[in-house]
Amino acid sequence: MKPNVCLYDTTLRDGTQGEGVSLSVEDKVKIALRLDQFGIDFIEGGWPGSNPKDMAFFERMREIPLEHATITAFGSTCRPNVAASEDDNLRALLESGVKAAAIFGKSWDLHVTDALKTTLEENLRMVADSVSFLKSQGLTVLFLAEHFFDGYKANPLYALRVLEAAEGAGADWVVLCDTNGGSLPHEVYDIVRTVKGSLQVQLGIHPHNDCELAVANAIAAVQAGAEQVQGTINGIGERCGNVNLISVIPNLQLKLGYRCVEDEQLQQLTKLSRFVAEVANMAMPNNQPFVGNSAFAHKGGIHVSAVLKDPKTYEHIEPERIGNKRRVLVSELSGQSNLLAKTDELDIDVELDKQEAREIIQKIKEREFQGYQYEGAEASLSLMLLAAGGKLDSLFTLDSFKILMEKSRDRAILSEATVKLQVNGQLVHTAAEGNGPVNALDNALRKALETHFPCLAEMQLTDYKVRVLDESGATAAKVRVLIESGRNGEKWSTVGVSTNVIEASWEALVDSIRYLLWKEGCKRSEPEEKAEVRAGIVNH
Amino acid sequence: MKPNVCLYDTTLRDGTQGEGVSLSVEDKVKIALRLDQFGIDFIEGGWPGSNPKDMAFFERMREIPLEHATITAFGSTCRPNVAASEDDNLRALLESGVKAAAIFGKSWDLHVTDALKTTLEENLRMVADSVSFLKSQGLTVLFLAEHFFDGYKANPLYALRVLEAAEGAGADWVVLCDTNGGSLPHEVYDIVRTVKGSLQVQLGIHPHNDCELAVANAIAAVQAGAEQVQGTINGIGERCGNVNLISVIPNLQLKLGYRCVEDEQLQQLTKLSRFVAEVANMAMPNNQPFVGNSAFAHKGGIHVSAVLKDPKTYEHIEPERIGNKRRVLVSELSGQSNLLAKTDELDIDVELDKQEAREIIQKIKEREFQGYQYEGAEASLSLMLLAAGGKLDSLFTLDSFKILMEKSRDRAILSEATVKLQVNGQLVHTAAEGNGPVNALDNALRKALETHFPCLAEMQLTDYKVRVLDESGATAAKVRVLIESGRNGEKWSTVGVSTNVIEASWEALVDSIRYLLWKEGCKRSEPEEKAEVRAGIVNH
Repeated sequence: MKPNVCLYDTTLRDGTQGEGVSLSVEDKVKIALRLDQFGIDFIEGGWPGSNPKDMAFFERMREIPLEHATITAFGSTCRPNVAASEDDNLRALLESGVKAAAIFGKSWDLHVTDALKTTLEENLRMVADSVSFLKSQGLTVLFLAEHFFDGYKANPLYALRVLEAAEGAGADWVVLCDTNGGSLPHEVYDIVRTVKGSLQVQLGIHPHNDCELAVANAIAAVQAGAEQVQGTINGIGERCGNVNLISVIPNLQLKLGYRCVEDEQLQQLTKLSRFVAEVANMAMPNNQPFVGNSAFAHKGGIHVSAVLKDPKTYEHIEPERIGNKRRVLVSELSGQSNLLAKTDELDIDVELDKQEAREIIQKIKEREFQGYQYEGAEASLSLMLLAAGGKLDSLFTLDSFKILMEKSRDRAILSEATVKLQVNGQLVHTAAEGNGPVNALDNALRKALETHFPCLAEMQLTDYKVRVLDESGATAAKVRVLIESGRNGEKWSTVGVSTNVIEASWEALVDSIRYLLWKEGCKRSEPEEKAEVRAGIVNH
Repeated sequence: MKPNVCLYDTTLRDGTQGEGVSLSVEDKVKIALRLDQFGIDFIEGGWPGSNPKDMAFFERMREIPLEHATITAFGSTCRPNVAASEDDNLRALLESGVKAAAIFGKSWDLHVTDALKTTLEENLRMVADSVSFLKSQGLTVLFLAEHFFDGYKANPLYALRVLEAAEGAGADWVVLCDTNGGSLPHEVYDIVRTVKGSLQVQLGIHPHNDCELAVANAIAAVQAGAEQVQGTINGIGERCGNVNLISVIPNLQLKLGYRCVEDEQLQQLTKLSRFVAEVANMAMPNNQPFVGNSAFAHKGGIHVSAVLKDPKTYEHIEPERIGNKRRVLVSELSGQSNLLAKTDELDIDVELDKQEAREIIQKIKEREFQGYQYEGAEASLSLMLLAAGGKLDSLFTLDSFKILMEKSRDRAILSEATVKLQVNGQLVHTAAEGNGPVNALDNALRKALETHFPCLAEMQLTDYKVRVLDESGATAAKVRVLIESGRNGEKWSTVGVSTNVIEASWEALVDSIRYLLWKEGCKRSEPEEKAEVRAGIVNH
């Protein structure tokens, strides 16, 4: 029976040191509540006294009862030649009202003499005095040994003496920090093992990801006897980030048999990762291990038929255990089994006979050869499949559009679009300006359709990407436009391809609207001929 | 003395299995040439016979001499009950004209019986027969044992027999694949060590990143005796990606003392990473280990003064060794010396006094904050520096331009541009059509200038890239346009930023023309006021 591993989250403190990460007090409260539900043991909320936002967070959290987690404040040991009881920094920790404090101190002799400019003995006094002062005030105390691994390599005896000073003063945890993120797993394993042999206190590990080895270092430390991992959700943090708890937890719990959280909590892992990314307004990489959109996506034809027969042939864990799901990608490499799995996954109720399936695969291949890419544009793929199965009303058709852009010196560029559509047998003619030609076109198109289809008012374009496909042609080259749209939290993506960026954008815009109208079950008012695949530019 | 580690890159094959990764034949050729310069030993180019694009790549590469690397084709062993010499797949490998082939085969008994639906003995025959057939044709042969680690855990004796079959048939390399990416470093270490004790042939490792442990697994395998690592640039690849060679290489070479490439080549690591990201049009995460923009970024205060005094206090390696650089926010002095180094590097003859240097640094910072990126657009940077030093004639100024696009049903979209310029004191008014708005604008602009500056007739736009900077705004978001231009083999790049793609394109187009005119020493005919930084949109 392996021991439990204690989870210490520092998303709200070390995580916010990451470039581009900024959390309001309310953001931090929201994240803390989710971390508590998920089963995190310690939530480090900030550094009291370093800024007013952190103090406000601790004040807010005093009013909010948590189920499981202990809110923890971060700080440093007292300054040289100052008694711990008289140090402003430590007093601010107490004023924050937390029940647990994590204080860092130097364990690398070079930093003691060169950065702190004090003696090695005085540093030991600072560590012991600070820990015992906080203990005397009734706090749970974690001592964070900064630069421990570098310090140990430079002067192992002194580095150990620093830990012993913290232990002797009554620290509840001693945490070994790989502050510069430069240590390798075998070093971490060996050093943690040595420390484990010298101390009685519980050990923690605090790795950074500068060598893309933080997860391995956390695991190595646990295997060597550490019982706490300190990291952040999605690995956000300074430079290359802290260790990613989202990867550490399933590795420890599903692969190595350590217990971190309850199984039901582990099933919330994917949601937790995406929630924090959303609140912090950071794009989630699709290929993020365990929880990314592509983490269980299968592309090659051989892979797909095998994985459908027996998932463990191509999946290292069952995605459901961490709340993620399997996805089958339709691509130029795919076969018929992909397509059938896809119609199921997209929840599209079309029945295609063998001949129709072959035709639609052929069509997808031709379009992919032209530069379309459906793996990032599943709404466009859905529309193709629906049209092939005769399940799509066309609802509106294009008569014409015009775009005019005008630039005079000293003036911003002006972009105006006019659109002429047939909607429900009526001619609709609208005009709109916009911030650039595609935005103007989007505005004019919505104006033309919103009175007939009010649900469009709630739809938003959430992402717009342009990729030049054949770069040799430069400004006359073919481009692919990917558009992501959203409504009430649901998102979908569409694609358009043309040598003309406006034409490609129009195609993707029309698809995004058509997809929403199909989801909403919109019908045309009058009976008309069988629907076509693509309205607007492509069909009539 | 530690052995050399052989580098096998599969960016062009396994990398393109990644979601959203799509490379044209020309993209693949460009990347292959860079990989060769960098010192990669094997470049896996594709799977001949699986699609026409891969075959076209091998055809192109037959005409291009490489300095160091061996172009390698990927494929599988022959099918059950088919002689290797009569297998289409193996014949396609030979037809591709490569000198090295990597063929995968099953080493997990479950896959042999359930996926291949053949006997364990027949699988051994397939492996041995395929390897010896390719050897008899004079190829270097790498045998890739698919699912080796899972297979070894399920049935170690059979998994080893598969490797022995490959070795016995004369394979040059046996590569152990963690196909599902589910193995942990200590398992990889132990298993590779066992295999190393049983075989004579050189071993390779092919890890995937599903547990965020691929780099650690590659290192563990090398420490256990593997002499080849197979991975991709930036870790692109199916699901969570292949192992990231960009992180593996500096860990092996700088931390562990193995030799992978020459020191001068290692200094190209950051450029290689960014080049491949650019060609594949993938956003580079700022926090990417080693090569990310934030990997050596330091915030203000004590941290910065410490790092300037002694970099090893807060940096695990010297960033220069891998071609990255330390970023310290707001450091006037270091900024100024960088700038002087830059004018030298760009071969620009301007003398800036302290005040002018400070102003231009401030301007560059403001523009980078707005989204400009001068690392990939040094011609635009040169123009800024020349203007600051009063060395740039403006030569032409914009009065106005207009673009009209018209789309009617059943017709292709029509794009027309008119441009009104002041050139040498004359008003020039031209009109042109184009394949899209930017192409029309480019054509009208050249028409207006070519009679005055005939050298423009030889200039070509060789690349055009659009990147959306702030994705939350969708079609109203800010975009960066990068244009690459060429003339008689010389190339230069320029940049424009705006919320309007046309405005951003215009800015980059004008810069590209201005840069050529400056290089050619073109002068305005009449004396006029001091030149401005940017013609066209920005200056008059």
